[in-house]
Amino acid sequence: MFGDVVMGVEHKHFEEVLQKVKDERRIKFDNELTVEDLRKVVEGYKQLIKFKAGRMFPENVHEQLEMAINAVFGSWNNDRAITYRRLNNIHGLLGTAVNIQSMVFGNMGEDSGTGVCFTRNPSTGENKFYGEFLMNAQGEDVVAGIRTPGKIEELYNVMPHAYDQLIQIRKLLENHYKDMQDIEFTIEKSKLFILQTRNGKRTAPAAVRNAVEMVEEGLINKETALLRVDASSLNQLLHKQLDNNAKKNAKVLTKGLPASPGAGVGRIVFNAEDAYIWNNEGEKVILVRTETSPEDIEGMNSSQGILTARGGMTSHAAVVARGMGKCCVAGCSDLIIDERAKTMEVNGVRLREGDLISLDGSTGEVFYGKLDLVEPVLSGNFGKLMEWADKTRKLGVRTNADTAKDAETAFKFGAEGIGLCRTEHMFFEETRIKAVREMILAETRNEREKALSKLLPMQRGDFYSLFSIMKGMPVTIRFLDPPLHEFLPKEERYINDIARELNVSPEKLKSKIEELHEFNPMLGHRGCRLGITFPEITEMQSRAVFEAASQILKEGKNVIPEIMIPLVGKDLELSHQLKIVHEIAQKVMKEQNVDIEYKVGTMIEVPRGAITADKLAAQAEFFSFGTNDLTQMGCGFSRDDSAKFLKQYIELGIFKRDPFETLDQEGVGELMKIAIAKAKPVRPNIKLGICGEHGGDPDTIEFCHRIGLSYVSCSPFRVPIARLAAAQAAVKEKKREAEENYKNMLKQSISEIKKKFGNTVNIEDLEKEFVKIVVSKGGNYSTA
Amino acid sequence: MFGDVVMGVEHKHFEEVLQKVKDERRIKFDNELTVEDLRKVVEGYKQLIKFKAGRMFPENVHEQLEMAINAVFGSWNNDRAITYRRLNNIHGLLGTAVNIQSMVFGNMGEDSGTGVCFTRNPSTGENKFYGEFLMNAQGEDVVAGIRTPGKIEELYNVMPHAYDQLIQIRKLLENHYKDMQDIEFTIEKSKLFILQTRNGKRTAPAAVRNAVEMVEEGLINKETALLRVDASSLNQLLHKQLDNNAKKNAKVLTKGLPASPGAGVGRIVFNAEDAYIWNNEGEKVILVRTETSPEDIEGMNSSQGILTARGGMTSHAAVVARGMGKCCVAGCSDLIIDERAKTMEVNGVRLREGDLISLDGSTGEVFYGKLDLVEPVLSGNFGKLMEWADKTRKLGVRTNADTAKDAETAFKFGAEGIGLCRTEHMFFEETRIKAVREMILAETRNEREKALSKLLPMQRGDFYSLFSIMKGMPVTIRFLDPPLHEFLPKEERYINDIARELNVSPEKLKSKIEELHEFNPMLGHRGCRLGITFPEITEMQSRAVFEAASQILKEGKNVIPEIMIPLVGKDLELSHQLKIVHEIAQKVMKEQNVDIEYKVGTMIEVPRGAITADKLAAQAEFFSFGTNDLTQMGCGFSRDDSAKFLKQYIELGIFKRDPFETLDQEGVGELMKIAIAKAKPVRPNIKLGICGEHGGDPDTIEFCHRIGLSYVSCSPFRVPIARLAAAQAAVKEKKREAEENYKNMLKQSISEIKKKFGNTVNIEDLEKEFVKIVVSKGGNYSTA
Repeated sequence: MFGDVVMGVEHKHFEEVLQKVKDERRIKFDNELTVEDLRKVVEGYKQLIKFKAGRMFPENVHEQLEMAINAVFGSWNNDRAITYRRLNNIHGLLGTAVNIQSMVFGNMGEDSGTGVCFTRNPSTGENKFYGEFLMNAQGEDVVAGIRTPGKIEELYNVMPHAYDQLIQIRKLLENHYKDMQDIEFTIEKSKLFILQTRNGKRTAPAAVRNAVEMVEEGLINKETALLRVDASSLNQLLHKQLDNNAKKNAKVLTKGLPASPGAGVGRIVFNAEDAYIWNNEGEKVILVRTETSPEDIEGMNSSQGILTARGGMTSHAAVVARGMGKCCVAGCSDLIIDERAKTMEVNGVRLREGDLISLDGSTGEVFYGKLDLVEPVLSGNFGKLMEWADKTRKLGVRTNADTAKDAETAFKFGAEGIGLCRTEHMFFEETRIKAVREMILAETRNEREKALSKLLPMQRGDFYSLFSIMKGMPVTIRFLDPPLHEFLPKEERYINDIARELNVSPEKLKSKIEELHEFNPMLGHRGCRLGITFPEITEMQSRAVFEAASQILKEGKNVIPEIMIPLVGKDLELSHQLKIVHEIAQKVMKEQNVDIEYKVGTMIEVPRGAITADKLAAQAEFFSFGTNDLTQMGCGFSRDDSAKFLKQYIELGIFKRDPFETLDQEGVGELMKIAIAKAKPVRPNIKLGICGEHGGDPDTIEFCHRIGLSYVSCSPFRVPIARLAAAQAAVKEKKREAEENYKNMLKQSISEIKKKFGNTVNIEDLEKEFVKIVVSKGGNYSTA
Repeated sequence: MFGDVVMGVEHKHFEEVLQKVKDERRIKFDNELTVEDLRKVVEGYKQLIKFKAGRMFPENVHEQLEMAINAVFGSWNNDRAITYRRLNNIHGLLGTAVNIQSMVFGNMGEDSGTGVCFTRNPSTGENKFYGEFLMNAQGEDVVAGIRTPGKIEELYNVMPHAYDQLIQIRKLLENHYKDMQDIEFTIEKSKLFILQTRNGKRTAPAAVRNAVEMVEEGLINKETALLRVDASSLNQLLHKQLDNNAKKNAKVLTKGLPASPGAGVGRIVFNAEDAYIWNNEGEKVILVRTETSPEDIEGMNSSQGILTARGGMTSHAAVVARGMGKCCVAGCSDLIIDERAKTMEVNGVRLREGDLISLDGSTGEVFYGKLDLVEPVLSGNFGKLMEWADKTRKLGVRTNADTAKDAETAFKFGAEGIGLCRTEHMFFEETRIKAVREMILAETRNEREKALSKLLPMQRGDFYSLFSIMKGMPVTIRFLDPPLHEFLPKEERYINDIARELNVSPEKLKSKIEELHEFNPMLGHRGCRLGITFPEITEMQSRAVFEAASQILKEGKNVIPEIMIPLVGKDLELSHQLKIVHEIAQKVMKEQNVDIEYKVGTMIEVPRGAITADKLAAQAEFFSFGTNDLTQMGCGFSRDDSAKFLKQYIELGIFKRDPFETLDQEGVGELMKIAIAKAKPVRPNIKLGICGEHGGDPDTIEFCHRIGLSYVSCSPFRVPIARLAAAQAAVKEKKREAEENYKNMLKQSISEIKKKFGNTVNIEDLEKEFVKIVVSKGGNYSTA
């Protein structure tokens, strides 16, 4: 599929020649071409090649074969292949292989044909044979979507014996591979050939349904089922759908094939480059193409959804979109697209680049305008899988949530508490930022306290609401973290207005902005350094936490606040801050006459904090690894700046993946391991979590499981992903252990057998001995 | 000396009352006052106290005593005391103590007196009794410098028996303490009282001379001598002196006491605050005061030198300046200073704030204008001490040098090679920066290579010169490190000119500047990241190194270039760069037909590099710890921004000292230890150095010795400091080991003795046994 350039001629140019002949003859499909027409086409192709390659197409078949082989090898390093591997995190391969087989032809007439089928529905997961075929056609014609193929069940009407045979093969292959199969076949003069079978790609809903149903059918066990679903792909289940009410009132433009589920709402663009550019500029876009090709991958990745005029459920657009978890409506044949003019016409309506449309990838409907979206409904199979995951996993799963809305979403998705509440997010709200700015501009402690006292009731209310939503589960509150300049205006034009609002001169505001300017704010005056220079901030935040907790307790409900001090690098920083926290706790408990069970802990995000974790553990009841900052400081990569060289680092293979996406286990992970090894002897029951963005990345979660963290904390939509990934980590560990045990058992057995029998042994004796050994080690050995 | 406030009245206000009475009576010295005058003074004092304190000065002696005691306790935490402790790195004390003694009076008439003396000259170190005395005076009068005292040898004329007694006591005390003593005495009605003796403060030259001469006198051994000199204080020996030729032609304004050696050239300021402010603004200043007091410490620290009108060699100004290693001319009695008008008159010349003067602290001369300075001449005693240090130390001492001048200075000071040559410093020169900018603005590799080819001969010349100066000792060359934006103009007004010079549009230059802008440049596109994205830079620099080395070899001289890759965090970064280095090395050696012995290594300055040092050691033949960056990233402190909170951190005791001045051993030091522990098993003979600014800090050097580094590298002027500090570290370690051995020997002996004698033993038997044990362990035991 990737080697679509023959002797310098691109696929689309061959297509133009073909189309021209078809247009002259006013025919629609390839198979309507006569021998004379085909001669014309071949002549056109040859001329094209001569023009581009400067030589004739070779007539020697050996030369043709060699060129074909070289073309495949060459395709390994073209841009599209590289992009494909990057998007799919495929690394470390040496190259591609070439199989050479004699060809069977599906285009030898009406008793020949070709098709692609799945043993179950790859979109929904339904256990029903599913696929497409075309008679008198080659495989390429089905997947390229040039002719719209027939449904596989219709093959029964055309060629019943081939269909029956396919049905038998479907069962055979699935029982053998114990997984859903993607099968390609060709019929040459009524004889069925299976060209290929492989585990079928599927949507996340299909993966979940397959996994759960295969357990119920007894085909696989629950642990295998858990491993069958790519945890990251669950986001396809969790994403929004078009609102049904909105759909009722909306104008349906057309209906295509429901090629990849979910919803997409955005502005139309007509090529991949525009999709990429618009998306980078913050616009949500829908990529509209006659058909997609591998060059479009980057653009598809940048879009909310993909709409194509041609191609079926197994077309390029459909397959790639499902892999990406993007909504896709394919084969929408009444679309007339003018890619050059950047317009499209559909049932009399003319749309231009930038017009808004909405796609429903589960029904194939295309709507005019921007429709509302609704939260996903989590199906029964999903619930079952999550239940198995929860029973299997050892890691807790919490969420990073700063608002009631986030907390509610996360709670619904099964979060077991809040692992990170970034209190500064509460400061940015328009009604509050004024008080924050007053605090920053205060000249004296007294003025600062006055400004802080305005923030106190707001923060208390925020915490009260989070505590309520979390119903007694732990809520980790991180105290103020960002450098203060983030709260002041950056642009000249706002300074006058804001100065007026704050009742200070613009000069004073400007000079404060200048005073707070830092060359490397990431390494500047932030985190606990703020609480140390302005202890009154820590006092206010502590008071807000404990007063909110008191309120909850007085309502007869439970609450476990966990106060977390950010950016700690040295034990004395932590003790400075904890002294304030404990003092305020005592005060509030006395004032409110309640007894609050609370915990204090610290972020481990400064390398120095990690390597002196023994000293921090003496005071901290929990650590939460802030792997974003730990990556920044540990690797010396500014998150805001490093993209330009990190991209090249990944291309060069210096880093396999972006260390801000998936944890750099060798480096940053080593810092975590050092911290744990130092902390555990000092406080064996210390709670260990992670709250960087890595907390929702399956590979990182597996690592966190291995190094013995207590929980991961991630954004609400990643909570189900984390639950599944944590379960997968537990299953994999169990498997590793079992393998290890097995290896050890074999090793021991061999030595015992040698001792008993010397160098030769009768097989029957050996088996008896084997049974004895296995049973003695607590195993079962059936001799049936 | 610090408690100069009595019941709210400052010392200077008492002085004003006294001065007023003296002015009225037109007398100069206190002892000229009559009883009537003194009554007036006392009355004035009492009124002052009543005015300030709102109550009468208490007449009850017990109350007076209690108040005096409290005043001393209270002085512990006044600002001056805190500043003093900070400047002298005094930490961890609980408070001060108060001794109560009955008073002896030196002001009971002409048969009474008081004095301060040193067993040897504290300024030059000469082994000659040295001091000052005043008859009919109290000790405060000598040190405060109000009356200029007589030389100690003149005491013989006034009161020979007291002088003879002092001479005997001088010998007694020095033999007892085996160190130069600072003695205070009072004579009350012809009877000599010694008030105090302590090890005397001395200038660095005096410390060196004392130490060396006491070895020669058999008073101390060489190891003790090495510990006697504060390594940091050596900078007093190494600093510049006024040029003798310049002095001949210069106008001598006046001559005072040579209170602290060295030279000071700068603009006059008349108070400590101005000194501090001007110095912060980059002006070199001379602080001129009638006399200094503890409030002036910060200002003295900010000055190039101190000039006072009153006070002797033991005055506040003299003592403090010697401690600080600042030049000081004291007691320059023909100066008439108007501190309010900020002018001074000296022998008819009127000078204002901002006028330039030059001080010679070794002669007491004060010159008009700015005189040239010359390099110090290192004396014979210094040479001897350094020789002993070199024989004692285990650590190598190299220098950080980027220019021939630096390299020459360091070579003269005994550097054993270059530990860090920052190649980018060679790029900033006016003639070169154009080519650097062309390289940055290049759009293609080809253009970039063209620009680099202009830099090649310059870099080659630089390296050739460093190799020549270092005469075959290792020269460590660090490849390009800073972010490229540092080479482009920052200010709008330069952009047009530079764009014209580079033959590009100002817009292009601006857009490049914007493209290179980083939010956190410290964590940005710099170090080996540059060499990886622009391999042609590494190629050029490698070629320059190897071509320069070839030239040296062809001249029949030796050279050991060591190429150091900066900012390495991951093994694959290092291998990427080393591949280029080795390729170019092979090429150049073939081209030039020479065989160059070279080493390749890496900076350890990214925390990730430290904790994956095992992987780096597989490729690197040496590590150099870049503790500046390692501190920045390890602690998360931006060097440019952190001052504002680090100051408070030090006041709060969170850090004892600025981690950029002296290594944070607990944190950054731990990273170093981890790196060493990981690297050694992989490459046991790996060379380990340090090249951050900490490399010249004695405490850090001791740490480097303990953790087993091979060498330290520091700025040229710190080379002798490092040599001595390294020797001190070795002596201290030997002492620790000896103590450890001794403790072990005693422990073992006790157990052997118990075994033999049970619980009681005759002392003679014990001693015999002891001899046996000691001899059996290879020791000597003299029973004499």
